[in-house]
Amino acid sequence: MTVTTPLDHLSVFETLESEVRSYCRGWPAVFDTAQGARLTDEDGRSYLDFFAGAGSLNYGHNNPVLKRALLDYIERDGITHGLDMATTAKRAFLETFQEVVLRPRDLPYKVMFPGPTGTNAVESALKLARKVKGRESVVSFTNAFHGMSLGSLAVTGNAFKRAGAGIPLVHGTPMPFDHYLDGQVPDFLWFERLLEDQGSGLNKPAAVIVETVQGEGGINVARPEWLRALADLCHRRDMLLIVDDIQMGCGRTGGFFSFEEAGITPDIVTLSKSISGYGLPMSLCLFRPELDVWEPGEHNGTFRGNNPAFVTATAALDAYWADGQMEKQTLVRGEQVEQALLAICEENSAYGAHFRGRGLVWGLEFADRSRASAVCARAFELGLLLETSGPESQVVKLLPPLTVTPEELDEGLRTLDRAVRETA
Amino acid sequence: MTVTTPLDHLSVFETLESEVRSYCRGWPAVFDTAQGARLTDEDGRSYLDFFAGAGSLNYGHNNPVLKRALLDYIERDGITHGLDMATTAKRAFLETFQEVVLRPRDLPYKVMFPGPTGTNAVESALKLARKVKGRESVVSFTNAFHGMSLGSLAVTGNAFKRAGAGIPLVHGTPMPFDHYLDGQVPDFLWFERLLEDQGSGLNKPAAVIVETVQGEGGINVARPEWLRALADLCHRRDMLLIVDDIQMGCGRTGGFFSFEEAGITPDIVTLSKSISGYGLPMSLCLFRPELDVWEPGEHNGTFRGNNPAFVTATAALDAYWADGQMEKQTLVRGEQVEQALLAICEENSAYGAHFRGRGLVWGLEFADRSRASAVCARAFELGLLLETSGPESQVVKLLPPLTVTPEELDEGLRTLDRAVRETA
Amino acid sequence: MTVTTPLDHLSVFETLESEVRSYCRGWPAVFDTAQGARLTDEDGRSYLDFFAGAGSLNYGHNNPVLKRALLDYIERDGITHGLDMATTAKRAFLETFQEVVLRPRDLPYKVMFPGPTGTNAVESALKLARKVKGRESVVSFTNAFHGMSLGSLAVTGNAFKRAGAGIPLVHGTPMPFDHYLDGQVPDFLWFERLLEDQGSGLNKPAAVIVETVQGEGGINVARPEWLRALADLCHRRDMLLIVDDIQMGCGRTGGFFSFEEAGITPDIVTLSKSISGYGLPMSLCLFRPELDVWEPGEHNGTFRGNNPAFVTATAALDAYWADGQMEKQTLVRGEQVEQALLAICEENSAYGAHFRGRGLVWGLEFADRSRASAVCARAFELGLLLETSGPESQVVKLLPPLTVTPEELDEGLRTLDRAVRETA
Amino acid sequence: MTVTTPLDHLSVFETLESEVRSYCRGWPAVFDTAQGARLTDEDGRSYLDFFAGAGSLNYGHNNPVLKRALLDYIERDGITHGLDMATTAKRAFLETFQEVVLRPRDLPYKVMFPGPTGTNAVESALKLARKVKGRESVVSFTNAFHGMSLGSLAVTGNAFKRAGAGIPLVHGTPMPFDHYLDGQVPDFLWFERLLEDQGSGLNKPAAVIVETVQGEGGINVARPEWLRALADLCHRRDMLLIVDDIQMGCGRTGGFFSFEEAGITPDIVTLSKSISGYGLPMSLCLFRPELDVWEPGEHNGTFRGNNPAFVTATAALDAYWADGQMEKQTLVRGEQVEQALLAICEENSAYGAHFRGRGLVWGLEFADRSRASAVCARAFELGLLLETSGPESQVVKLLPPLTVTPEELDEGLRTLDRAVRETA
Repeated sequence: MTVTTPLDHLSVFETLESEVRSYCRGWPAVFDTAQGARLTDEDGRSYLDFFAGAGSLNYGHNNPVLKRALLDYIERDGITHGLDMATTAKRAFLETFQEVVLRPRDLPYKVMFPGPTGTNAVESALKLARKVKGRESVVSFTNAFHGMSLGSLAVTGNAFKRAGAGIPLVHGTPMPFDHYLDGQVPDFLWFERLLEDQGSGLNKPAAVIVETVQGEGGINVARPEWLRALADLCHRRDMLLIVDDIQMGCGRTGGFFSFEEAGITPDIVTLSKSISGYGLPMSLCLFRPELDVWEPGEHNGTFRGNNPAFVTATAALDAYWADGQMEKQTLVRGEQVEQALLAICEENSAYGAHFRGRGLVWGLEFADRSRASAVCARAFELGLLLETSGPESQVVKLLPPLTVTPEELDEGLRTLDRAVRETA
Repeated sequence: MTVTTPLDHLSVFETLESEVRSYCRGWPAVFDTAQGARLTDEDGRSYLDFFAGAGSLNYGHNNPVLKRALLDYIERDGITHGLDMATTAKRAFLETFQEVVLRPRDLPYKVMFPGPTGTNAVESALKLARKVKGRESVVSFTNAFHGMSLGSLAVTGNAFKRAGAGIPLVHGTPMPFDHYLDGQVPDFLWFERLLEDQGSGLNKPAAVIVETVQGEGGINVARPEWLRALADLCHRRDMLLIVDDIQMGCGRTGGFFSFEEAGITPDIVTLSKSISGYGLPMSLCLFRPELDVWEPGEHNGTFRGNNPAFVTATAALDAYWADGQMEKQTLVRGEQVEQALLAICEENSAYGAHFRGRGLVWGLEFADRSRASAVCARAFELGLLLETSGPESQVVKLLPPLTVTPEELDEGLRTLDRAVRETA
Repeated sequence: MTVTTPLDHLSVFETLESEVRSYCRGWPAVFDTAQGARLTDEDGRSYLDFFAGAGSLNYGHNNPVLKRALLDYIERDGITHGLDMATTAKRAFLETFQEVVLRPRDLPYKVMFPGPTGTNAVESALKLARKVKGRESVVSFTNAFHGMSLGSLAVTGNAFKRAGAGIPLVHGTPMPFDHYLDGQVPDFLWFERLLEDQGSGLNKPAAVIVETVQGEGGINVARPEWLRALADLCHRRDMLLIVDDIQMGCGRTGGFFSFEEAGITPDIVTLSKSISGYGLPMSLCLFRPELDVWEPGEHNGTFRGNNPAFVTATAALDAYWADGQMEKQTLVRGEQVEQALLAICEENSAYGAHFRGRGLVWGLEFADRSRASAVCARAFELGLLLETSGPESQVVKLLPPLTVTPEELDEGLRTLDRAVRETA
Repeated sequence: MTVTTPLDHLSVFETLESEVRSYCRGWPAVFDTAQGARLTDEDGRSYLDFFAGAGSLNYGHNNPVLKRALLDYIERDGITHGLDMATTAKRAFLETFQEVVLRPRDLPYKVMFPGPTGTNAVESALKLARKVKGRESVVSFTNAFHGMSLGSLAVTGNAFKRAGAGIPLVHGTPMPFDHYLDGQVPDFLWFERLLEDQGSGLNKPAAVIVETVQGEGGINVARPEWLRALADLCHRRDMLLIVDDIQMGCGRTGGFFSFEEAGITPDIVTLSKSISGYGLPMSLCLFRPELDVWEPGEHNGTFRGNNPAFVTATAALDAYWADGQMEKQTLVRGEQVEQALLAICEENSAYGAHFRGRGLVWGLEFADRSRASAVCARAFELGLLLETSGPESQVVKLLPPLTVTPEELDEGLRTLDRAVRETA
């Protein structure tokens, strides 16, 4: 996203906050309140949000159902910070998660609270896989994004972010994600050969970590059959399959887990972002019970018991996942986006416009790789928050709240269309 | 801490939650509400809290001043999840932090929001130090604790936690913390020789990371002159000094920063735990402005803009740090603890009891290294939450809220005394 | 190769020498003398040698021309051990190497004596490449073999040998060697995509290390056009190309360097094995002059000045490389081998026999992957020394001295044919 | 050693050989022949050699006894290059080594031929220790020197040589060598504390690698009691003790092994340099039989069967080690050196001259750390080859052949005295 001239009211950010800040550069406003799919800045200007906290706000900003539960909990002095103590809020969450999410899907997982961020969850998943298998190596995919702490960063693709590590990132090997080699190579031909050949030079991996749709990597959508073949490969070759569902889980692609469509059962699953429902820091690491070889306290963290988040998480599961309505609605809204993108791409076929997506995550790309940033910058001026993704920020990423109304969706898509036209 | 028999009402924790859970084993209750220095379980039993969320609740549970600010913010739909966008809540925090914390102490730091957990802050500090210096190696100290993600874990001392990594942890070298060699060796003799000798085999470090008081490592208190000598060594030998003030900052030892007493200015400081004041996930990485070589977005994280935490953090700074009252009170409370521990140790001199501490962090140790766990278990039965620390859990750790009343403190110390007597 | 019952006269090997010994297990004889293509054991039995010291005896055992020079040098007390001092023997070698090898081929290389073994040369090549490019990562190929010290082992493919490291081998990434994916994938498609994509997750390599024919890896022959495409890729993507010519150089494939056929000029070349001509330990690392950024003594080694080896090396260059006879003869002998293998494979087409090779290095493989070991064991009984290669020892490897006579070659090939028939 | 102006007859070295060359810079002569303790350059000038091939020529240059055996072997076409095949030369060596070296000292070792250089031996020792213990970490000592390949370099102290690796060297931790902290710290206090404390942060080492006298590191002599305490520590703490006797073994300090004086039995011993006796590349790795867990071929190398070296090695053992004469003579010669150094140091006490050593390895140091290079440069002009050692080349290193005559020794020591005087 392009960097715009600083405004005066931004000054403390410019003088005191580190240069590492990024979103605030592309969206030079000071936001104040938010509700559903809309944010309002301190000057009263309203923005439609098609970014949804990078997927952390699937139920919209300050969702009233969750807000009520949260306020009630805080008002009655429900325990806030609970480390990994047993609390009533945590029990309610665990019981609801089991009842609403795991049992109906026949998923046998144990639940770990690894700390409140996605990268905490990924770190715990990688540790566990290495401990279980007694091997160091992990396979990830081209353009994967799994987090910024050293364990997660080593399986993240982005060269710019990797360089930030300050040490050589090792123990990870990238394999081609689905479609990466444009269909010129049979799926997993290379990976399978490396594994079967005792002379290949690949350190045998403990695990494979994958996103079903790569959000940061450019909205790359894996086909269900590709995911099934991957699960089968992992099973046959004695590697654990970790699905990082931090951005694509919690209903983003339709089903609660993004891998449901493929009919696979990963060995380990990471969840974060929208699991609390309210944008509060929370994450989970789920795994098959036979993998639960942790010693007490072998992994820990101060904020792994963020009880207000458990409360909103429970409320969100109750409100949205007790039946199949949310999933159906997401798919319907997804079709609405697809139609709009189809029209935009037809209109812009001269610019090599094309799109891809699933559920309510979509990407729009142009032959000119700088166009996406221009589109997002123009969209901001028009009151729509849109981000780019991909290694060269070459993809416009659509990630509206799942609770967006058809009217809001339509409004945002029309703004996108206009932003595209006005950046031609 | 000893593991106790499960109760029926714990069942979902036992069946669904991972074996990695730990505190809930030593404290087999289901906690429900909390206020100030007290928690209440679902059966209505009350507990006095001398653990304070491992130092995350310096202002007590659900502090009413912060609670009001938090409720107001949530009620008015203040933005909750803000990535690193500019928000009014974040601006208020930054301005207050500058006004109340940095300026009066003449600290020139830039402020980075590296993600909401301590380990996020440590990872960012290590990355930055390596990037600035172009070296991989970092020196840490015996019995250091800096976090569970791979970067932080590599500079953490505990062998059990290190083993959880599943890969060899490298790029870190331990040096003896203050008092480690019982005064038999001049301070920094070994470290300085390694640095000055081109044949020593030490990879030249980018940075040294230190806690002024090691909380997890056994309440090991560095003398101010030791810290000053360390700062001087770092300066002379071109290494950055990182003070990890996650557990000891925010007033735990008296001053806002634990290093103030020594009169040093670290190059990088990490804060978390009590910075939000309310037990909400939040952390900061502070550094000298000339170190701010980050590219925009080079380090990021979904929950680095936890705005409700900014709100309570601002309220806490305003309420407790606008003047020097909090610092004075902590030192007074500390003396109260010291007197009580002195009495306990005199009474138990036959058991080799001794203690140490600063401000409101204290440790009590016995010749019998298993005694600490027994004391904590008995304290729990008597309604007092106490944890052990140290590599063999051999130290009883006292970490009451800073807002504890003299009466509560007295009550807890009497309970501790009783628990000690009853485990003799 | 199969392990045979120990004989009495082997006892000191069995009781005193480590279990790591290998060739002596498959060839249970005590060898005494050798001349040309023949060895004689202590019982007077003669063996035809189609292994040639794993490529170290291209001019045969105890070649009389070199022997005379060696004896003269020793007799006149020519300096034996010279570290990296200037000596007359070293000067003669350098001048001859320049005159006979480098100048006629228009190769601009500087010459480094990195220690007397192949792995010393590879270690120095990798160090230099990393130093020049300031990057840690190196790309190697499936089934590569570069040596047993940790630097070389990290770019070697064999899983069994890699496991011997006792540490995770990192900083290397394998790519598919020519033919590895059976023509299903365009050459370098994957490698190029990884390099061009800033999100691929590949740490940018300092260098690529390759053998033109993989000797240990199973006699895998790279096509000239594949090598040219690789050289081009390295050039375009700013990676150094290292050709490890330790086994295939010194005329094994015809030309002095095995890469001459492809018309490429690698940035760095390693030579060892037959460079001394007499089986004496010696190795070289050659590189473009602009890469000569070594500081004096930055890499060293006690035996890098093995002067008797310089003497025989000089004599070998003078005797065999002053004109093009050796190259022509090798190609003629190679055709003789090819014809014989063609006949064997036609005869054994039912067993899936197939072969491949170049110059005087050839491999014979059967559908039954254990057949190669059986053939070699039978050949030994018939008086022919033959070794297997490949990750499963599935390839019979033919590596006769380049100085083998047509009659000896015919004899050995007939023995091979018989061994194949008798192991059907 | 200082770099001198190139002479014309050096030109091919200057134009063709890599800048990495070092000794030839300080000794700008082209050496031609050598005998005993003397070298002769091509201009007929004679030099007395107090460097002895960095300890590879303990029996002098081209020792006539060994020379005869070598010539006989070559003349009769004894097998030269034998990989790890059983040969009569190898058997003779093994039997003699057992009879003359191992049995009289009651050493139970198995013998491994790991390749012909010291660094090959160290790499194999480290691999074996890691494999046996299942741990990656190895402890080495300040100013250790173990070799230039990546495994050995990681346990070498010299920062300049370490930097040549081009990757961060990890898995090694330095501990203070004897006398390193000038007696201010009890021996092994720090090391033992790190090992006994589960919170120390030291990755538990598989092994400790040590030289009894550090040759490259500055002629640092460990006391026997220090070595015994180290052996005891290794035993108690389940770490293997590796003595790298490459430079100090083969009689350099008096006994065949340098650790005999201390009465310890290391778990693993590396030998190279003077083991062949004639300066031919050869090395051994010795270890307790219960450590012989190698799989056949798990470590290998092309030149590990350098049979001419076995022949001279056998002749050397027979000639010099069948009785105790050599050991006695070395100690007598050592006293002669000691007396001379004592006199020099008394004479130069104003320059802070001091010395240290054992057997026939001695070091002379001055307060002015650049003096040693000046002394060596002047000695060269006076016809004496002397090298410096230590991280700043601050030590004049005396390493004459063990076979030096008292007269030669006297001559050299007088030249040294003169060189010292003339550089004051």
